[in-house]
Amino acid sequence: MVQPPDAKLYEGKAKILYATTDPRILVQEFKDDLTAFNAQKKGTFFGKGALNCQISAVLFELLASRGVPVHFRSLETPRRMLIDRLEMVPLEVVVRNRVAGSLAKRLGIPEGEELSFPVVEWYYKRDDLGDPMVNRDHIRVLKLASDAVLDKIREIALKTNEILLPFYRERGILLVDMKLEFGWNPAGDLVLGDEIDGDTSRLWEAETGVRLDKDLFRMDLGSVKEGYEKIYEKVVGHANES
Amino acid sequence: MVQPPDAKLYEGKAKILYATTDPRILVQEFKDDLTAFNAQKKGTFFGKGALNCQISAVLFELLASRGVPVHFRSLETPRRMLIDRLEMVPLEVVVRNRVAGSLAKRLGIPEGEELSFPVVEWYYKRDDLGDPMVNRDHIRVLKLASDAVLDKIREIALKTNEILLPFYRERGILLVDMKLEFGWNPAGDLVLGDEIDGDTSRLWEAETGVRLDKDLFRMDLGSVKEGYEKIYEKVVGHANES
Repeated sequence: MVQPPDAKLYEGKAKILYATTDPRILVQEFKDDLTAFNAQKKGTFFGKGALNCQISAVLFELLASRGVPVHFRSLETPRRMLIDRLEMVPLEVVVRNRVAGSLAKRLGIPEGEELSFPVVEWYYKRDDLGDPMVNRDHIRVLKLASDAVLDKIREIALKTNEILLPFYRERGILLVDMKLEFGWNPAGDLVLGDEIDGDTSRLWEAETGVRLDKDLFRMDLGSVKEGYEKIYEKVVGHANES
Repeated sequence: MVQPPDAKLYEGKAKILYATTDPRILVQEFKDDLTAFNAQKKGTFFGKGALNCQISAVLFELLASRGVPVHFRSLETPRRMLIDRLEMVPLEVVVRNRVAGSLAKRLGIPEGEELSFPVVEWYYKRDDLGDPMVNRDHIRVLKLASDAVLDKIREIALKTNEILLPFYRERGILLVDMKLEFGWNPAGDLVLGDEIDGDTSRLWEAETGVRLDKDLFRMDLGSVKEGYEKIYEKVVGHANES
């Protein structure tokens, strides 16, 4: 079905998209590269792509089974998944359960503090601008999405959080925050796309508070490989057992 | 009525508040100091306080006459006004008609571009954090204001803009953007407070695009004194004539 490498449609910092014989379906390949701070910091480790691809596959399957519309269709190889081709909404949607990262700096609140409800933030996907935070008026004036679409995205993002929060909790992991992306599939439905893993979520070991996610790499706090392997073990291991 | 200097209640970067014999009423005195970039850049010029105080007085009177609730009661001296004592909402509300300043950087749009509708932004008043931009979820989680209060503030801010935009336009000035602050008066009403002048608004000469506001000081573009005198002449001069 897949025709790499000629059919490479797009290469990003962490993933490559390939065409298939079906114009509605793409292959999403997960790279071993790691980047942070708008790609100013770069790294790589063998197997990173496969870990994240399989973690994302399990989470997308879980979400789909609970009624969340997703682009994911099936896992093809350990680092490749088949997905619906999406017309992306040029926004990153961040859902936060605890204070961390830019929110700690923005509000002057220590990392780890629990938020009384999930906080949603919008970021304009523009690498050249450093993906700035935007509000609804900015989104309206840039015509990035209608109010109705933003409401729908917010609803799906919060539902995703409601499903993943206890899923992770049962596995001893705190879902601190995560970045989601959305797009329109060939059928015209708004669906969750991109990936959901340690590259795009902050995941802390509940008992110790130890970070398992990309912050290990961002802040040189320890082995990001070990962190991602632990996420894999908890998410994919458990999923296969059940 | 006023009892300075013993009765000084608060001194900010550009204004001083004094108590009066009436606990519901304060004196707001405008200083000659100029600051920018969270007070990292400082300046002063004799007469600046009096210019801004009288400009603000005219604009508050205009707004009040058009039904906008304001804290302003009367001009006492050229640089002092009597105001209702307010319990401030710790937010700065920015209304923008054209792209300038931080919005140009945030969205990657050239300064001066007209926005298809007025854009409203919220900033958390926290000097120690550099007054960060916040969204409604941040405001909710910090309990800075209820959704109903934010809706009301937004409504008053947009009405203020609708009144001032043509007022300035008739005087050959473009109202590019302005920062507003709100508070609760002793009667329990939400009203517009603070000041409205070249310190808190971007005002460009319509014909030439020349800046008349604090950007002259911020960016060392020319005499801020001459800019403020021009605003005064257009706003206060015209007001006195009519």
